[in-house]
Amino acid sequence: MLYPNPQNQHPKISETAWISENAVIVGDVTIGENVYVAHNVIIRADEPGSSIVIGNNCNVQDAVIIHGLGGSKVDVKDNTSLAHGCIVHGPCTIGKGCFVGFGAVVFDCKIGENVVILHNSTVRAVNIPSCKVVDDGQVITKQKLVEELDDICLNLEKFKTSVVDANLELVEGYCRLTQGADCE
Amino acid sequence: MLYPNPQNQHPKISETAWISENAVIVGDVTIGENVYVAHNVIIRADEPGSSIVIGNNCNVQDAVIIHGLGGSKVDVKDNTSLAHGCIVHGPCTIGKGCFVGFGAVVFDCKIGENVVILHNSTVRAVNIPSCKVVDDGQVITKQKLVEELDDICLNLEKFKTSVVDANLELVEGYCRLTQGADCE
Amino acid sequence: MLYPNPQNQHPKISETAWISENAVIVGDVTIGENVYVAHNVIIRADEPGSSIVIGNNCNVQDAVIIHGLGGSKVDVKDNTSLAHGCIVHGPCTIGKGCFVGFGAVVFDCKIGENVVILHNSTVRAVNIPSCKVVDDGQVITKQKLVEELDDICLNLEKFKTSVVDANLELVEGYCRLTQGADCE
Repeated sequence: MLYPNPQNQHPKISETAWISENAVIVGDVTIGENVYVAHNVIIRADEPGSSIVIGNNCNVQDAVIIHGLGGSKVDVKDNTSLAHGCIVHGPCTIGKGCFVGFGAVVFDCKIGENVVILHNSTVRAVNIPSCKVVDDGQVITKQKLVEELDDICLNLEKFKTSVVDANLELVEGYCRLTQGADCE
Repeated sequence: MLYPNPQNQHPKISETAWISENAVIVGDVTIGENVYVAHNVIIRADEPGSSIVIGNNCNVQDAVIIHGLGGSKVDVKDNTSLAHGCIVHGPCTIGKGCFVGFGAVVFDCKIGENVVILHNSTVRAVNIPSCKVVDDGQVITKQKLVEELDDICLNLEKFKTSVVDANLELVEGYCRLTQGADCE
Repeated sequence: MLYPNPQNQHPKISETAWISENAVIVGDVTIGENVYVAHNVIIRADEPGSSIVIGNNCNVQDAVIIHGLGGSKVDVKDNTSLAHGCIVHGPCTIGKGCFVGFGAVVFDCKIGENVVILHNSTVRAVNIPSCKVVDDGQVITKQKLVEELDDICLNLEKFKTSVVDANLELVEGYCRLTQGADCE
């Protein structure tokens, strides 16, 4: 379901994205190519001056919530996975190839590339450089805590890529299911 | 979507509230003036003898869940914000001007006025006096832990008020969008 | 809403289950007798070779998400409660009579019988034997942490049973509300 916001701005969505009919997308939202937006996702840019951009090949899994404060931007770069039930709130930039885990909260942050933020963790008001890992349930709300984070290991790199690939297959699979041979 | 519960009780909703067509409200639920109920919210009073009251000028943000045990009441007082994805479960009283953060769980509690409960925290089986702050990810399930909570600082007071105001603007903005000049 | 997955597999649901019209169930999913599936639940088996089975008398409360990796199975045994907003992700087996709390994450686990996993906790990559309790907010991602868990107390046993019974009453109550005397 696509809705305008009170400023009468409408979502702009790539034709190659797969959007569940149960997802709710509101206002100044731009969604790139081959993005998978699962069921009950909410992507809502409706406070004055807020906007949300989701890059190419991202997946936004079930019941994820993306919203932003007035005047803020949420910018999620290519090949990033936002996993089931996580909350990403602007102002927020998330770099390429990141993974945000189940139920994690990310708010008022700059996140580098290839960062893995694990399940039920909370990341707020910090900048996280590229290739770091936030553990399950960890709370990172002070910049000095960021220094203690581990670098990403090869094992997680493989996991991260497999999530992106599995969701790109879903985009293709659901397209074929409904559009058959017309689906590229 | 409004539904009766098995006792055939129906929600009672102020005409000045804005309720997303994707919200689910069931049974003995009362919603006050200028309340904003966002997308995919569930407010469900259907166990025997349970009821839910949301006071004036509250906002119930995306995918919040409010439910109660049989015979229990959820009572959320005026000007309180229930932020994205939090869960409030009865028995539970939340005083005026509180903020419950993203993904927080509040169950079997009495919460005073102007309390700030931050993101992904868990508050259960305790009473929290007015003007306290529960930190991100904190777990407060024993009354003695409540004594160690900080008092709210002026900074959070401003944040709290800005959330309420932003959502009151949304109530007005969405009303104007759909009803134009008929919207007061 | 029931949907096929890209492999064109369809959910199989017992006639005695109560499924909210707002729940989303996709693909190779089997749901047993007297199961209560609340609003905005997502049960999605759509990665190649994944499947999900929910046993008899279970309740899957509002906005729960169940999903699985390709080739994995989620197997939830009889009389288990999956409470509001929890996430269960395959590979995962959950034994009879368990309770998974609000906002909890359970992923890549074998959980025994009568285990209680409390609110906002995270349980990943471990096996938990029967009759253990994971506390609110606890993070259990290493097998050695499992050894320190408490055994379930009688008090929680009563709580656990009361949740199952309350939800079985809802299945019956909503059936009577819509089907009247035709409901057994």
